[in-house]
Amino acid sequence: MSTQSKTNGVVTERLAQVRTLMSQERIDAYLVPSADPHLSEYLPGYWQGRQWLSGFQGSVGTLIVTQSFAGLWADSRYWEQATKELAGTGIELVKMLPGKPGALDWLAEKAAPESVVAVDGAVLAVASARTLAAKLYERGASLRTDFDLLSAVWQDRPSLPTSAIYEHLAPYATLSRGDKLAKLSDALQERGADWHFIATLDDIAWLFNLRGADVSYNPVFVSFALIGPKNVSLFVDSAKLDANLRQTLESEGIALVEYTKIASALREVPADARLLVDPARVTCGLLDHLKAEVVLVEGLNPTTLFKSQKSEADAQHIRQAMEQDGAALCEFFAWLDSALGREPVSEIAIDHHLGQARAKRPGYVSPSFATIAGFNGNGAMPHYRATEQEHAQIEGDGLLLIDSGGQYLGGTTDITRMVPIGTPSTEQKRDCTRVLKGVIALSRAHFPRGIASPLLDAIARAPIWAEGVDYGHGTGHGVGYFLNVHEGPQVIAYSAPPLPQTAMQPGMITSIEPGTYRPGQWGVRIENLVLNRAAGKNEFGEFLKFETLTLCPIDTRCLEVSLLTQEERDWLNAYHAEVNRRLSPLVQDAALEWLRTRTAAI
Amino acid sequence: MSTQSKTNGVVTERLAQVRTLMSQERIDAYLVPSADPHLSEYLPGYWQGRQWLSGFQGSVGTLIVTQSFAGLWADSRYWEQATKELAGTGIELVKMLPGKPGALDWLAEKAAPESVVAVDGAVLAVASARTLAAKLYERGASLRTDFDLLSAVWQDRPSLPTSAIYEHLAPYATLSRGDKLAKLSDALQERGADWHFIATLDDIAWLFNLRGADVSYNPVFVSFALIGPKNVSLFVDSAKLDANLRQTLESEGIALVEYTKIASALREVPADARLLVDPARVTCGLLDHLKAEVVLVEGLNPTTLFKSQKSEADAQHIRQAMEQDGAALCEFFAWLDSALGREPVSEIAIDHHLGQARAKRPGYVSPSFATIAGFNGNGAMPHYRATEQEHAQIEGDGLLLIDSGGQYLGGTTDITRMVPIGTPSTEQKRDCTRVLKGVIALSRAHFPRGIASPLLDAIARAPIWAEGVDYGHGTGHGVGYFLNVHEGPQVIAYSAPPLPQTAMQPGMITSIEPGTYRPGQWGVRIENLVLNRAAGKNEFGEFLKFETLTLCPIDTRCLEVSLLTQEERDWLNAYHAEVNRRLSPLVQDAALEWLRTRTAAI
Repeated sequence: MSTQSKTNGVVTERLAQVRTLMSQERIDAYLVPSADPHLSEYLPGYWQGRQWLSGFQGSVGTLIVTQSFAGLWADSRYWEQATKELAGTGIELVKMLPGKPGALDWLAEKAAPESVVAVDGAVLAVASARTLAAKLYERGASLRTDFDLLSAVWQDRPSLPTSAIYEHLAPYATLSRGDKLAKLSDALQERGADWHFIATLDDIAWLFNLRGADVSYNPVFVSFALIGPKNVSLFVDSAKLDANLRQTLESEGIALVEYTKIASALREVPADARLLVDPARVTCGLLDHLKAEVVLVEGLNPTTLFKSQKSEADAQHIRQAMEQDGAALCEFFAWLDSALGREPVSEIAIDHHLGQARAKRPGYVSPSFATIAGFNGNGAMPHYRATEQEHAQIEGDGLLLIDSGGQYLGGTTDITRMVPIGTPSTEQKRDCTRVLKGVIALSRAHFPRGIASPLLDAIARAPIWAEGVDYGHGTGHGVGYFLNVHEGPQVIAYSAPPLPQTAMQPGMITSIEPGTYRPGQWGVRIENLVLNRAAGKNEFGEFLKFETLTLCPIDTRCLEVSLLTQEERDWLNAYHAEVNRRLSPLVQDAALEWLRTRTAAI
Repeated sequence: MSTQSKTNGVVTERLAQVRTLMSQERIDAYLVPSADPHLSEYLPGYWQGRQWLSGFQGSVGTLIVTQSFAGLWADSRYWEQATKELAGTGIELVKMLPGKPGALDWLAEKAAPESVVAVDGAVLAVASARTLAAKLYERGASLRTDFDLLSAVWQDRPSLPTSAIYEHLAPYATLSRGDKLAKLSDALQERGADWHFIATLDDIAWLFNLRGADVSYNPVFVSFALIGPKNVSLFVDSAKLDANLRQTLESEGIALVEYTKIASALREVPADARLLVDPARVTCGLLDHLKAEVVLVEGLNPTTLFKSQKSEADAQHIRQAMEQDGAALCEFFAWLDSALGREPVSEIAIDHHLGQARAKRPGYVSPSFATIAGFNGNGAMPHYRATEQEHAQIEGDGLLLIDSGGQYLGGTTDITRMVPIGTPSTEQKRDCTRVLKGVIALSRAHFPRGIASPLLDAIARAPIWAEGVDYGHGTGHGVGYFLNVHEGPQVIAYSAPPLPQTAMQPGMITSIEPGTYRPGQWGVRIENLVLNRAAGKNEFGEFLKFETLTLCPIDTRCLEVSLLTQEERDWLNAYHAEVNRRLSPLVQDAALEWLRTRTAAI
C-alpha cells in the first residue's frame, strides 16, 4: 500500500468526523482557510488545520466542507501538487484564476436561505469576515465565527511553537526600539488613535527589534502587541525570553504578558479607546473581544509602512549581505558546473549545496524560503519543491531554475537564476531572453514617487506580452530587512488593486521576477531585488529609480543574445561588471574563475 | 472698463443672491457641479449653472458656496484659465491634483454637525450623492437634493435645445435598432433585470441609431430611454422629430414620449420591477421618482460596452473616415507650411482653415471638439482654446500644438500633431522625441485581452519618466463611432481605478496621447487613435494589439532623430509609408507634395 492511499483514507475519516460535528452543531458549510491568528504566510503546525483536514500540503488553499461536497480552492501554482495530493480524498480541486470568483464567493452564492456557514473566527481576517457576512446576509444565510470545530476532532494537534526569542542588535538594527515606538506613537496621534493592536508577526519583530524561529524561514515569533496611551504590552510565551532579555525589555517600559492572555487584554481596552487596527491584518475572532464602544480607526499598521522603507544605514547592510550571498552563489554555481560533468546531481543535492555555501558566509542565519530547484518540467511549477520522495536528476539537455534566498542579520535575499544543462533548445533560450528583457525594462525604469506599485507591472510584461507570452504570478513582492521575504505594502502585480498604501516610496525593496512557464516542459524565471532610490525632483515632480541589489551573474549561455537590443546588452554588461567588481574580492579559485567567465561582456 | 471686471461684478451680484436664498432655506453650503441630468461632457446652456454663477467658462469644475467662502475646484488643465476668469469674483481657485481630496471631500470635512449641504439632485450622479451623503452623515450633517436653488435666481436661464433629430443610416449604421434592442434585452435578462433606464445621451443615440445636435461636438440629443419588459420609450421633445422619423420609430414599436414626462414615467415603473441602472451615469434626482420597492440592479449600461466594441464593418467605415480626415489634414498642413512664410497666421486662422479643409470631405458633419491650436506657451495648456479676444500669432521660433478632430458619418477622429515654427530649440525637439517614444511604445504593445486598460498607461509613460518628465492627464480615452470623442468604459490613465469594466476588448478605439507641458514655454502632445485587434490566442491566453487608425505624418522636423532607437525609427518609417500609401490617392498638388516630403523615411 502506497503512502498516497494511506493518507487519503485518513482524510476521508477526518472529513467524516467533521461532518458529524457539523450536523450536531447545525452547520451547513465549514470553511478552513490557510491562516492563523497572525495571518502569517508560514503557519505553525498548530494552525495547519487545512493541511491536516484536506491532505493538501501546499501553503495556500481554502477548504470548504458541506455534507455533500468538499472543495479545495488553490491557485495555479498548486494545481499539479493538489491534483496529486487530493486524489482519492473525495475533495475536489477548484482551480482559482485571477479575477474569477473565489472560495468565499462560492460560499455566498451556494448558501441557502437560513443556512449557517462556520469558520474559526480566530483565523479569519476582519475584512474577509465582513465581506463574507455581508454576502451571506444578502442570501438570508449567516456566518458563525465563535466555534473552532477542528479542535474537537483534531486529537493530535501540534502544540504552539517554543523557539527562543533574541534581539536584533546594532549595528544591524539601525533604529532603537525606543525610537521606533516613539515614531509609532506619532503615527497613532496623526491618525487620531490612542490605542493600537498588532497581530502580524513581522510588524512586531520589526517594532521591538526582536527575532525568533517559530515558523520556517521567517525569523519571527508568535506574539501580539497592544499599545495604549501609557503602556506597551508584548504578548508572548514567557519561556521564550531569557532573564536578560526580559529585563532589558521591561527596563524599557515594555510589559511582557503571556501570549494566551491577549483575549482578556483586549476585553480590558477601555470603552473610550480609539483603536487603530488594520482590518486586513487582524482576525475577527480577536477583535470580537473588544467592548462594543471601542472606536476602530482602520488603516494600515504604521509599522508596515515604516519597515518597508529601509534607511540608508539598512541599505548599506543589505548591500553587504547581497555581496556575501552573491559570493556563496558563485561558489555554489562553480561547484554545480563542475559536478554536472562528473557526478549525478539531483534537485535535492542542489538545495543541500546551496545551503552549505550560504552557511559559510558571515551573518547568515537561515534560508529565507524553501529552495525551488526545478529541472525542465519541474521548473514549470512556480512553487515546486523537490522532496526526498520525488525529485529529478539533472541530466540531458534543458533548463534548471533555481530560486533561493537567505536570511542574514543585515538583510534578506531572494534570487532566481537559470542554469543551462547540456544544450538548451532555441525555444528555451528565447524564453530566457524574453524574461530577461522584462527584468531589464523594469530595472531601468524611473517612475513618479508615490505611484501605486501595481501600475508598474506592465513595464516588465510589455516585452513578454509582445511575443504572446504571459505569466500567472505577480512581477514583484516587497522584501523585509532580516524579516519576511514577502512583505507589503508595495506589490508589482497588475492583479493587485492599486490602493494608496501600495505607493512606491524611497527605501522600499521589491523583487523583479517575470517568468514563463510551459507546463510539463520547462519554466523560466529571473529574479533580482531592487531598492527604490531618489532619481531627482523637478517641475514634473519627484522621481524614483531602482538600484539592483542582487549580485550574481545571469548565465548568458541561456540567452539568444541576438534578440537583445543594444540598450539591453549595455544594461547586462554594466550589471555583470558591477557583479564582478563587488564579488571578486570575496571568492577564490574555481568560484572566482566561474565569476569572471560568467560576467564576461557580451 | 474691461470685459473682465464687468463680468466679475455680475458674478459678485449673483453670488449675493444665492447666499440670500441659502439663508432663507437654511442651506449652509451649496454645491454646483458641472453637470446635467445626462451627466454629459458638453452641457446645453440650460445646465451651465456653474459657469453662470462663477464666471469660470472651463468645461469642468465644481463650485461650492457658503456664507463666508466660495471656491472653484478645477484640475491642472484649467488653472491658468480659472485664475484669469475668477479674478475679482471673490471665488477662490482650489487646485485639484490626482489622488488629493476633491470638492466633495472638502465639503464633508468642513461640514459642521447639523449643517445642510444642498445640490440640485437632478444633476448629481447617484454614486456621488451616495458617497457625499455618507460622508456628511458621519459628520452629523445632511445632504438636500430636492431643490434647484439656481432656478430661483437665474432669470435669463437659456431654454432647452431644440435641434432636429435624424437617423444614423446604413451603411454607416452597421446594426439595426431592432438588433440593438434585442441585444440589450438579452443583456438585461442575463443580469436579472426586466427594466432599464438610460440617461446618457450617447448610449441613447447609439441604441436608436439616431443623432442630433443639441450640444456642441457630440452628435447627440437631449433625451431619456426607459426599457420595460413589453415597451421601449424614448423621451424627447416631439418637435425634434419629423413625421417620417416619428412614424418609422413608432412602427418599430418605440413609444415617443415628451422629454418632460420622464419623472412621471419613472413614478409609474411597477413596484415589482428589477431596474438596471448605472449609478455613475444616472442622477439621484431622477431615481428618487421610482417607487421605493423597485429593485435596482446596478451596473454599467450594456450599451456602453456594446458601443465601445466596434464591429469590423464599423472599423472599415472608420478607416475610410480616417483617410478623409488625413487628406484634409494634408491640405491644411500644406497651406500652413506655405502661409507661414508668406502671411500673418494666428491660432484662430488655424482653427478656421482646419474646419474648411475637413468640411470638403465626404461624410464630414462637424468638429468633434473645439480645436486646440496653441503656440509655444499656449500649447502648455492641455485644454487651451484660442478666442477672438485672446490668441497668439504664429511667428518666431517654437512649437505649435494642434489638437483637432471631426465627426464623420462613418466615424469620429481626434488627432494631435506638433508643427515646427522657425527653428525649434534642442529642448523642444527632445520633448517631442520623448513624447513620440511614448506613443510608439504603447502603439507597438501587445497585451492580454481583458486587462484593465489603466494598467497599460505605464508602457507609454516609461520612456518619458525615464528622463524625469511626466504629464498630468491620462494617456488615452475611448472614442465613439460618429459619437462622443470621449467615451468609456476603457481609459488608459493610471489615475483611473482599474475596474473590471475598463477591460480591453476587441473593437475598442482609444487615443494614445502622451505629452509634456512646460508652463509659459511650450507644450507637446502627439495623439493617434488605435483600434484593439486580435493578436493571437495560445496556451498563455488571448492577446490584443493596436491598429493605428489615425493617418497623418508626424513632423520629423520636430524630432531629434538620433534619440530614437532603430526599432522606433522602423515604427515611424512603417507608419509614414502606410500614411503615404493610404492618403496619396486622396490629395493633389501642394498637399500631395507635402505628404510625400513629410512621410520620407528617416
